[in-house]
Amino acid sequence: MINDVIVTPLKIIDVPGGNVLHALKAEDSGYSGFGEAYFSTVESGAIKAWKRHRDMILNIVVPVGQIKFVLFDDRSDDKEEFHEIILSKSNYCRLTVPPMVWMGFQGMSKNTSMLLNIASIPHDPHEVNRKFEEEIKYNWSI
Amino acid sequence: MINDVIVTPLKIIDVPGGNVLHALKAEDSGYSGFGEAYFSTVESGAIKAWKRHRDMILNIVVPVGQIKFVLFDDRSDDKEEFHEIILSKSNYCRLTVPPMVWMGFQGMSKNTSMLLNIASIPHDPHEVNRKFEEEIKYNWSI
Repeated sequence: MINDVIVTPLKIIDVPGGNVLHALKAEDSGYSGFGEAYFSTVESGAIKAWKRHRDMILNIVVPVGQIKFVLFDDRSDDKEEFHEIILSKSNYCRLTVPPMVWMGFQGMSKNTSMLLNIASIPHDPHEVNRKFEEEIKYNWSI
Repeated sequence: MINDVIVTPLKIIDVPGGNVLHALKAEDSGYSGFGEAYFSTVESGAIKAWKRHRDMILNIVVPVGQIKFVLFDDRSDDKEEFHEIILSKSNYCRLTVPPMVWMGFQGMSKNTSMLLNIASIPHDPHEVNRKFEEEIKYNWSI
C-alpha cells in the first residue's frame, strides 16, 4: 500500500433494535485531530474523481452501500500503480488517507452509497487539488 | 427546550453523482472536543431508551431514515415535560445533548434508520446511566 495509508478493521456490535458501528476514536492510530465530519453520497456507478488534499488527513468509513476507492500516489516513480479497496458493511474498515495522495471513488451498490469522512481540518478549497476523471487513466468499468 | 440542548440546521449540498451532507465542524457551537464517532442504527418502530451520560456531550445527525428523539431532564422540578424532535434528511439538523439529560429514540421510517454520534469523550460504560423503557412513562406509539 501507499505510505501512511491505513486500513483498520472496525467492529459492528449487535444490539437489539439496531446495531452499533464503530467509526473512529481519538486514541486510534490514524487519528490526527478533528476538523470536520461530513457525509458524501455516491449514486450507483457514479464516479467522483480525482481529488488530492495538500493538508487534510481523511478518515473514511462506509456505513451504507458499497464504495470502491482508488488511490494513486504520483510522488513516487511508480506512477502506474493504483491501489483499490472496496468498503461496505461486509468489509467494514476505516480508510486513513494521508495528504498528497490522489483519490477517486465509485458507488458499487445498486442503491446510493454513503461515506463518512472525519477530516483532520475543516474544508478549505485552497488545500484541494482536482483533476478531471480522464486526466488520470484508470479503468472504472465495474 | 432543555438548557444547553442545541438544534442546528445543517446544509445538504447538491453535487453531481451524490450529495454532500454537513455534520460537524470544530468551530461550530456545540462542539466540545472529539472523543469518538460511531453509528447507531434503529429498526422501524424499535425503541432505544433510556440512557443518560454523566460526562459525554453528544452531537447527533441522522443521514439515513427518520428518528424521533425524546429528551427528559429530571434535574428540574418540571418532571413531566418531554422534548421531542424528529430528525431526517427532510429536517436535517444536528442535535447537541449536554450531560445529565435522559434520551431515548425510535426508528420512524419503514426501513432501518441510522444516526451518527460525534461524542466529546470515548465510550465509557462508567459514565452511562440506564433506565428500562417503562421506568420513564412516555407514550412511544407512532
